[in-house]
Formats: sequence, structure tokens, C-alpha cells
Amino acid sequence: MATSGDKKISAGIVGISGYSGMELAKLLSRHPGFELRLAGSDKWAGKKLGDRLSLPRGAGEVVVEAQETMKARLGEVEVVFLCTPPEASIELAPHAVRAGARVVDLSGGFRLPPTDYPRWYGFEHAAPGLLAEAVYSMPEANGDPTRLRTARLVSNPGCYPTASALAVLPLLRAGLVEPGTLVVDAKSGTTGAGRKATEELSFSEVDEDMRAYRVLRHQHTPEIERVLTLAGVSGARVVFTPHLLPVRRGILATAYGRLTASARSLGAGLGDAVKRALSEFAAGRGFLRVVAVDAVTLRASVGTNRVVLGAAADPERDVIVACASIDNLVKGAAGQAVQNANVMFGLDEAAGLDDLTGYAP
Amino acid sequence: MATSGDKKISAGIVGISGYSGMELAKLLSRHPGFELRLAGSDKWAGKKLGDRLSLPRGAGEVVVEAQETMKARLGEVEVVFLCTPPEASIELAPHAVRAGARVVDLSGGFRLPPTDYPRWYGFEHAAPGLLAEAVYSMPEANGDPTRLRTARLVSNPGCYPTASALAVLPLLRAGLVEPGTLVVDAKSGTTGAGRKATEELSFSEVDEDMRAYRVLRHQHTPEIERVLTLAGVSGARVVFTPHLLPVRRGILATAYGRLTASARSLGAGLGDAVKRALSEFAAGRGFLRVVAVDAVTLRASVGTNRVVLGAAADPERDVIVACASIDNLVKGAAGQAVQNANVMFGLDEAAGLDDLTGYAP
Amino acid sequence: MATSGDKKISAGIVGISGYSGMELAKLLSRHPGFELRLAGSDKWAGKKLGDRLSLPRGAGEVVVEAQETMKARLGEVEVVFLCTPPEASIELAPHAVRAGARVVDLSGGFRLPPTDYPRWYGFEHAAPGLLAEAVYSMPEANGDPTRLRTARLVSNPGCYPTASALAVLPLLRAGLVEPGTLVVDAKSGTTGAGRKATEELSFSEVDEDMRAYRVLRHQHTPEIERVLTLAGVSGARVVFTPHLLPVRRGILATAYGRLTASARSLGAGLGDAVKRALSEFAAGRGFLRVVAVDAVTLRASVGTNRVVLGAAADPERDVIVACASIDNLVKGAAGQAVQNANVMFGLDEAAGLDDLTGYAP
Amino acid sequence: MATSGDKKISAGIVGISGYSGMELAKLLSRHPGFELRLAGSDKWAGKKLGDRLSLPRGAGEVVVEAQETMKARLGEVEVVFLCTPPEASIELAPHAVRAGARVVDLSGGFRLPPTDYPRWYGFEHAAPGLLAEAVYSMPEANGDPTRLRTARLVSNPGCYPTASALAVLPLLRAGLVEPGTLVVDAKSGTTGAGRKATEELSFSEVDEDMRAYRVLRHQHTPEIERVLTLAGVSGARVVFTPHLLPVRRGILATAYGRLTASARSLGAGLGDAVKRALSEFAAGRGFLRVVAVDAVTLRASVGTNRVVLGAAADPERDVIVACASIDNLVKGAAGQAVQNANVMFGLDEAAGLDDLTGYAP
Repeated sequence: MATSGDKKISAGIVGISGYSGMELAKLLSRHPGFELRLAGSDKWAGKKLGDRLSLPRGAGEVVVEAQETMKARLGEVEVVFLCTPPEASIELAPHAVRAGARVVDLSGGFRLPPTDYPRWYGFEHAAPGLLAEAVYSMPEANGDPTRLRTARLVSNPGCYPTASALAVLPLLRAGLVEPGTLVVDAKSGTTGAGRKATEELSFSEVDEDMRAYRVLRHQHTPEIERVLTLAGVSGARVVFTPHLLPVRRGILATAYGRLTASARSLGAGLGDAVKRALSEFAAGRGFLRVVAVDAVTLRASVGTNRVVLGAAADPERDVIVACASIDNLVKGAAGQAVQNANVMFGLDEAAGLDDLTGYAP
Repeated sequence: MATSGDKKISAGIVGISGYSGMELAKLLSRHPGFELRLAGSDKWAGKKLGDRLSLPRGAGEVVVEAQETMKARLGEVEVVFLCTPPEASIELAPHAVRAGARVVDLSGGFRLPPTDYPRWYGFEHAAPGLLAEAVYSMPEANGDPTRLRTARLVSNPGCYPTASALAVLPLLRAGLVEPGTLVVDAKSGTTGAGRKATEELSFSEVDEDMRAYRVLRHQHTPEIERVLTLAGVSGARVVFTPHLLPVRRGILATAYGRLTASARSLGAGLGDAVKRALSEFAAGRGFLRVVAVDAVTLRASVGTNRVVLGAAADPERDVIVACASIDNLVKGAAGQAVQNANVMFGLDEAAGLDDLTGYAP
Repeated sequence: MATSGDKKISAGIVGISGYSGMELAKLLSRHPGFELRLAGSDKWAGKKLGDRLSLPRGAGEVVVEAQETMKARLGEVEVVFLCTPPEASIELAPHAVRAGARVVDLSGGFRLPPTDYPRWYGFEHAAPGLLAEAVYSMPEANGDPTRLRTARLVSNPGCYPTASALAVLPLLRAGLVEPGTLVVDAKSGTTGAGRKATEELSFSEVDEDMRAYRVLRHQHTPEIERVLTLAGVSGARVVFTPHLLPVRRGILATAYGRLTASARSLGAGLGDAVKRALSEFAAGRGFLRVVAVDAVTLRASVGTNRVVLGAAADPERDVIVACASIDNLVKGAAGQAVQNANVMFGLDEAAGLDDLTGYAP
Repeated sequence: MATSGDKKISAGIVGISGYSGMELAKLLSRHPGFELRLAGSDKWAGKKLGDRLSLPRGAGEVVVEAQETMKARLGEVEVVFLCTPPEASIELAPHAVRAGARVVDLSGGFRLPPTDYPRWYGFEHAAPGLLAEAVYSMPEANGDPTRLRTARLVSNPGCYPTASALAVLPLLRAGLVEPGTLVVDAKSGTTGAGRKATEELSFSEVDEDMRAYRVLRHQHTPEIERVLTLAGVSGARVVFTPHLLPVRRGILATAYGRLTASARSLGAGLGDAVKRALSEFAAGRGFLRVVAVDAVTLRASVGTNRVVLGAAADPERDVIVACASIDNLVKGAAGQAVQNANVMFGLDEAAGLDDLTGYAP
């Protein structure tokens, strides 16, 4: 394994030709603390990265390797980012860890208890030992720098769970909504479905259309409940409905929860309590941004690592509605992976992420 | 007032240059029972309709009049369709009725009890007498042919209420969800916002974006509750959140309701009960189409007068999720107006609507 | 073969699950003179049409057959529309003709001289005999009702050639532009590429993007030159560049031609001569619509069988710029096929097409 | 006037709430050599920039001033970027120069000879003196570092002229196409039209549509011809047609030119000569990227300062087709302005632009 001194930390990406992998390549190529040294993709094998992505000079020179070849070289870098499907991550991660690299896995391969895999992912987990030690980390929800700093394998959260959990957590922390009554209606851009050749995802089919999918059986349902539990909420039960949106990037999660008795007792003060809950939750967390609920747009987060939050209450209808928006490829994947890796290696949590600029605040 | 015999029923449209007005012009121009004779729009005043819309020969020859001029001629036709803002409809409708024309109002001007107008529309209702006799008619929900046949003023439902009420009504009728726990998360194409020059609705702002708007204060909230009440449901309480979608046409309503005790008692039979509830509701109603919940797309309804319905239940999370899709300009406006007018004048309810074709069933 | 009397003419569609096939099904299902009796598609085999398309009752009951099965039944209908790839059309057409059905082929299988197939389509033509008798028919360009009325096989024009040829033909007929200097820069919606599962056509790739493709080697280049020749223009040479546009439907062709000496001699009268050329060309042709060149939009033609035309001249830069827009699936495919079939069977050329309505004139 | 030492060069932006202004704010906020100190916009007056844009901490703290107020403070910074309409730039620029600031004007206010303004811009130029000394600079076409280093006013090129001129210049330089036969068919995203409230630019009108506009009378026509002249080409005559594309960002210019006699004489060697012309033109120019003509996509340039170029020849049709793509807000506006300002102040030409990353190379 390479060591870090003054030098940048060496990094590798497996699955670099997918949307998350490409986004991560962009982020690492201009990161002050990491240096992209290895890139794996069967599709791009043999090409220079600069032939496929517009990157600053250094990173563009990296030659992509077939995934099988790269497997033997995982130990050459200090950190390996797996932008692979869950099954591939479960196969590769033990390999990388044994070779001495630390791993950030962006797939769903290490996010749930082993017993959940057959039902929600359709397979038995093949690396239960490593799963047991994996650290699931959404910094603004269940963040634990101490565990991250020593973790061999960090499981990076899913895109929907990031937006969904952060939409409701401020309200749950403040005791304003009942954890057993949560509904999350989420809408995602198409890059969330990955880079695929299917008729269903063709422009002619997706454009000017919208639909819910995997209704009541999406694998992010138990992950949302789990991250809320890890974040200290007990009794969280979430009805989660994902929708495919005719945009490329961005997730908007609209969440609903019934008022708690104490929220109801606030009367006219409820509105202020909601605002306070959000701003207290966001305090000191640089990637959280609180705005009016109608101002939570995709535009406000796309291109950045931000989570944009807003909420409003209606005592008459006994409900709080909260919205959260993220860029599914940044905060929902590559950006949060960098954020986690920053903490793992003792860098500033925002390194390489704080100069991403966007249109709306 | 003109009379109808063998001849087609004479019709007029006020506000023909808006999206609903244009859609209605298209529908009436090829309708077997109505003949478009009058068209009003300040924007298009003096132009032939055929200079602005692609219409079969006859209808294209109608010359558009300024709305003030047209006001004096409302009595020349048997039915006037008002595609005007609520305030304009409230002003015009009494005028038309006095002149002997029957009125279908597509605005929100005659949809709520008078006491609701200040809160939800921001003005006092200026024609409470006519409002009192207005017949609100969503044929598949509260349809009453007898009242329609004699009504002087029919209030045509809003686009969101149509999709929202029809998503949940089958389940409420079957006693499967609690009427006091309804959440409707609705997504609409931009033509629902009307034909406007605002920066907010410009392509550069709307494209690749999405947001909720008028959260917890949209005027369709009480209308959804009212139509459910008119349809025989008591205790309906709806949390309603509209979203602006980067598509031109179509509404997708995703609705949530908690199970009733009797639904819970069905155990493994709940799924079948949900299917039965939908198919019984749709039976004999030609514009309703039941599909799997993941198949409720905008594409399935856009261009037609159809309402596409689907639902799924999760006993573990105590919920039924139902989706409905409509074309906001057809079933959500002009098509439903034609459907109502068909009944008003003793025509087949589907006349002029049953040969609209679309891509998905 | 069935015979036509008072009865509707029986029709079949092979390849009904593609975009052209679906559009044709919609058009035939509401056509006063044709009745859709047979439908072939391996993908939809065994399904009722009404389970895949929103159609008026009768047509919806047709059960789709696998293409192999349908092959044996082609003689049961009076006309067969082939919405199949060129190779499949070349195989099926002789079969249908032998069985006594007349054929309208929507593919490129019968559009060029046999010697052009290896270069532009990449294969030797397998039915040169039938190709020799095929009647290529773009009614507004090379229309010949006499030949159509007796043709066994009509070759329906391509989408790009329809827009391209009709953009320049009025100017060529009037002797205003040099036939050897034509440039056509065309932009097409994605349904023009067919219904396919390719990464290249996925929403994530096509949305917010645009590119030229098959530059200087698109098979519609010789077809455009051929239809101009068939239309009586000699010496036509066309530089043709197709572009993929992030919209579902519609083609906009922007065409350029150098002024002839006689055009140059018109001086200040050139503008009027251009207008006259277009309006004379459109006179008596119900599907042609002349507007200002800036008003030639996709919206003006999509959903109808119209060709919208406009042009402007610049004597200083020695050029005329002409725009044409069509719906690639209607006038560019299914609509023109119906138009041709109408003439073949002695119906009004506009039957089933003249009540298609659209937004802009 | 402030002075620069080790310190960053102080900069101001007038018109910061428009699309170019916002993009420029993003670029300057992370630029190693400039510091954004002043921002003017009537619309955002009184707000912190960070309330409207997602920017790194420092830049977000700048408080926006009304343009009238800012006018009095232009001398406080070393460089003023004018992201204002031409008339406003013509009024503000002399003011800024007198106050000692150097100016980069992004409008069309200083791009043409004074005599061209009445015809192409519709007004008499009000600052002919300053216009006479203005340095028009498209670095890859007519770049002249010596003049830039001392210029008081630099006129930044238009978006269309940048893509159009750079598409054809390599071929003109190599003597392959006749300068008097150029046709440029250009397609632009909607942000090129600015941030406006017009019905014409509303999502409902632009989505799924396309049209040419200002045909044969767009003000970028003489600018393209002028930059080619400044770049050493004589006799350039350009037929230019802009189109509005339903995407937010990006311009694709497809250009056509007839072969010169010497190009024709190359026979089979023409293809190689075209490739060589492009690669020689791009040599040593870091923002130019040569790819196959079918690979010139918007995606390849959007988000970066790159110009992506490709071309192909057809001796049979006597033509070369060249494509160029740029991000209209970066290379077509703010990015090129930064590039020019870098040279003006002796910084590396690519400073602040070389770490912009994108998807395709």
C-alpha cells in the first residue's frame, strides 16, 4: 500500500464509466488531497481518461484498465471507490481490503443487515463478515468521525435515502412529527437509474412522461428506516415511493409526517418551531441549506454537494410537509463519497467540495 | 337563444387563446354534436381561428372577437364555455345565463362554497346567487345526469381535483382507507399554469428542475375535499402538494391513505381487495382505465379523456398507494367540459371524446 | 383477398409496435374508409391492441400476431402497411403482393434504384423485380394518382426527404435557386430513430444535447435527390446533414440554395417572388401551409399531416433560406402512408387526416 | 484605482443576475487571480450574492448594489465586467474607463464598426470614440496578447460568432473552403436569449419545439464576418441562421463551405487534409479539442471553456461540413471573458478555467 505524507492520497475508482464513476473522477481530478491513479472499466479499458472525460491534465493521463486486471492492483492505492453494482462490490471489497486499501463502496452492497438482502436485493450476501464491520456513513445524519477514521470499509448512502432521511430528520429530532407516520414521495432524474441501454429509459419513452416505480418494494425503503435508526430515531416507519423524472440530475423528496402531541400543543407557534428545527439541524453543517419550502428546487442543489431543505406545517390537517433536494450524483453518490473519504483520511470534510458552484443558494 | 333540432348545438368559447381554450376549440371543431360559432380572446381579436390553430375547415373560419364585444353576443349560442380566470368567469357567467345561454365554467369561480373564496381565492364571491345554483360535476365521482340536464351553470372540476379525487375514491368507496388520512402528492405539466409571460415559467428556469409550490395553501385542497364529500365520503381530509414538472401536459397524482380496520383484517386478501375496488369503480365508466400502479404514466392518458388508475397495498406499513394520471388539458379541463356538456344536452357522454387516441392504454 | 364495397377496406399493419406502426394504428382506427383487421409484432404477439394503445373500441379488439404467423395471412386484407426495417420489408412485400394484397411500404426498402442499395443501405437488394415496379409517392412532390390507383406496391417517402424536398421544391419550380447548390440542415426528434434499447438513445444521453450524425453518408441524401428528379428538377445536388434533437416528434429542415441569375435579376422584387413561389406551390394542396420563415415551428405541424413552409431571400448574400416542418410520424410516415393509400383506393386524399388538430396553423 | 501586487486583482460585475453574469460570478469566485468585490443588479440589489448563488464563502458575502449606485463605484476595482445589454454597456463603459477601471464588455456594444449599428442593432452608437479603441478578442481566432495587455476596453465575442468562426477558420486557414460560400446553421440553448419573462420563451412554448429566428437579419452575421476578417481571411461571406433549441445551455454550429480548387485537387487526400487542418489549428491551444464530426455534441463542451471541433469532406458534393460546439455561457460569454481578462492582467490564459470538468472530451 502506498503511504501518504505531504503527498496526495492515492485513489482508484472501479466502475468509472458509469454516471457516479464519472462524477467521482471529475471530483477527484481537482481535489487538493487525493490523486486519481487507478481507474477500472471494461467499457473504457485501454483508453486514457482524458479521451472520455474533460479533466485537468494529470487525471486525464490515467489509462483505464479492465476490471479483472485492476482487481490485482487494488492494493496499489490507499483508497478504492467502488462505483459498481452491489454484487460486484461485494465481490471486490474483500479483495481490496485484504490488499491493504481502504474502501468506499457507493453501491447498496454494504448498507443493510445481512438478513435484508434476500428480500430487498434478491440475493444472499456473500461477504457477511465484511458487512458486519462496514461503517454506514451519512455525515449529517449518523456521522461518526471516530469510526470513519479507522474504518476499512465505508458504505456510502443511497441517493434516495440521503434526500429522504435529511428531509425528515430535523423534524424527528425536534419531536415534531411521529416517526411511525412518515411518507416520502421522491422524484429522481434518470442518471439515478445508471447508464443503461433499455427501451424503458430511452428518450422517446421518458421525455414528457413520469411514473412511480418499484412501489412499496424499493430497496431504499429499509435503508431510509435504518439510517433514521442509526441517527437515533426509534420507531421510524417510512412509506417510500420513487418516481422517474424527465430530467438528468437531481432528486426532490417531498416528505409528510403527522404532528406529535407536543407539536400540536404549540398552536400558533408551530410554524416557528418548524423553522427552528431546520436551522438548528443545519447549524454548523456546511452542506445543509435551509430555504422556504417552495424554494427547494433541483436547481438549488444540482452541481453541488448541498442538501437544500424546507418545511411547512398545517395544524388543521395535522401534518408537516418537508422537501429536500440533492444532486443524485454528487451528494447522492460521488460527492458524499468524497466527503466520507475526507474524514477517513483526516482531511477537511469539505475538501474538494466547497468550491462547487451552483445557480441557486 | 338559438335552438337545437337536427342541427348541431351552437357553442361559444370565451378565453380561446389560453391552453384550455385552444384544447376545447380542437375538441369542438371535430365534435359530432356541437358547432363552434363564437370565440372570444382579446389577444386574438380579429383573427380567424384557422390562423392560430390547425382546425378542420369550418371551425377555422370563425373570427375571434374581443371579450368585451363577445359579451354582448353570448345569447347567440346555446352553450358558452368559459376558459377565463375565476374573476372573469364570475363576471361573465351571470351575463350569459341572463342572455339565455347555458354555461360550462372551466375556472375555479363556481367550485367552492362562497365562504371559502376569501381564504383560498383571495376575493369575495361577486355572484353568490348563481354560485348557489351551480352544479359541480365530475361525472365519475359525483355525476348526476338529472341535475346536469337542467343546469344553467355547470362548474367543471379543476385538473388536480380530478386526478386526486379519482385516485382515492375507489378505495374510499370500498372502505379500504381512512378518509381522514389522505395525502396527495401531485405533479403537473406546465400548461396547467396557463399561458403566461413570467420568468419563473421560462424554459431556462423550468427545464431540468422541479419544485413543490403553494404548499399547504393551494386552492384545490378544499375542492378535492368537497368533491369527495359530494361523492358520498364523509370526513375526508386531504394533505395536497402540487409540484411543477418539466413536461408540457399531464398530471400524475400519487395518493396515500392509511388502512381501515376492515382493510387490515383482510390479511393476505388485501391485494385482491384493492384490485377489486378499482375495477368495480371503473366498471361501466368508459374513461376509467385500471392498470398496475407502476404503469400509471402520463403517456397513458395524455391526448385522451382517460383517467388511468392503479394502486398497491402494504399491510406492514399500513398503507395503500394509489396513482392516477390524466391529461390536464383534456380530462382535467376541456375534455371533461365536453363530457359535461354532452350530458347537459342529452348527447352520448363520450361524444367527440371516444375517438381520441393515445399511445398507452 | 377481401373486396371492398360499401364496406370499409380491410387493412393490416406489420411492425405495429414501433413508433410508425403505433401512429398508423391510431390513424386507421378512426379512419372512415379503412378497417384495421390484422396487426403483426413479435413484441406484442398475443395481446389485444387495446392493451397497448388507447384506441376506439373496434380497433382495440384486434389481437396482435407474431410476424411469422401474420406472414401467412397477408392475403386476408386488401392493403398491408409495412412498418418494418428495410430488410424485413424487402422480404415481406413480395409475399404480400403474391397473396393479392396491395402494399404500402414505410421503410427505405423500395425507395432507391437497386444500384444504390449497397452503398447507402449496405446490402444488395433482394427483390429487384418488385423494386422496379414500386411507385415512390410523395403526393405534393411527384404525385401521380393514375399510377397510384393501380400500383401493387407504393413506396412511402422517408421523413427527412419529405421535409427536405418540400422545403426546396417550390423555389426550384419557380427557378429561384440553383439545383446544384442545395444544403439541407435537418433536425429530428428521437422517435425518428425508432423504438430501440441503446445507450446512445437513452434519456440521460440525449436530453440537453444535440449532435449531427451520419454526416455526408445518410441514406436519405440520394432519396432527396431522387424525389426532386422525379418531381421534374434536373441537376439537383443536396448536401444533407441530419441532427438528433432532444424532442420526441417533429422534423425541422432548414435549406439553403444559391440564387439563379433570374432570381438575382429581380432585385427588390425577389422577396415577393419567393412568397409567390411558395403560395403557388401550396395552392390547392390542403396539407401545405405557408407562413413566415420564423414561424415554421415543430409545434405548427406536430400531430397533423401538415407541411409548414416558409422562406426568405438575401440578395446581398446570394441565398434563399427555406424552412419546412413536419411531424415525422404523421406526414413523415404514417400520415403520408394513409394519404397514399387513400389515393390507391379511390378515397378522398385527405380522408382520416383532415380532422387532425394542432396548436399552431 | 486599486493596484495588484501579491493580492488578487479586484473585479466587479454589472448585470450579475443575468445568466452570463451568474456564470461569471461562479467563475470569478473560484479564480486564483481575481477577487469579486463589486456586483451590480437592480433585481438583486441589497441581497448578498450567497443568497442567490451557491458560491464559496468569500464571494457569497458580496452585497449586490443597484446599478445606478454601482456606477459611482466602478473605479474601486481594477476590472469591470459588463454583463449588460448593448445600450447599457455603451453608457457604462466610458464611465468605467474614465474612473480608471479596465473593462471587459460581454455585450454586442463594442463589436462592430460604428456604421453597422443602425442596421444590425437598431441604434446609433453613442460612444464612437471608445468603440474605436476597443479591442475585439477571440483568442483562438484573432488573439493578440500585446494589444490585450494594454487595452482599456476589451470587447468579448458573441456566443454564435465564437462557435461559428472557430468551426470554419481551420478550413479557411488551410485554404480548403471558399470564404465567399459559407453557410452556418447554428442551434442554441435558451439561456442564450437571456433571463426574460416572455410567453415566447416559456417552457410550454419552447419545450418539444424548435424554430429558426431572425433569419438573415441576426446581428451576429456581420460579427462572424468581421472576426474572420480580423483573423486574416479575406472575402468571407456568411449566411447565418440561428435556431432556438429546447435545451438550457450549449451551441452547436454546423457549417458548410464549398471546396477550393486546391482542395478539389487533393482527390483522395482531402479527408486527411481536413483532419490536418483542424489539428494544426488546435495545436497549442488548450481550449480547442478535435474529434470526429459526429462526436461534436453539446455534452462535450457544456460546463467547460472548450470548443469542440470536427469536420468531414465530400468531394462528390463539393463541400466540407464542420461542426463546433461550445457552452454559450462559458466559452460563449463568461469563460471567454475570463480568458481575455487573464491575458489583460498577465495571468496564465487558462487560469480559473482549466479545472472545469465535463463529461465528454
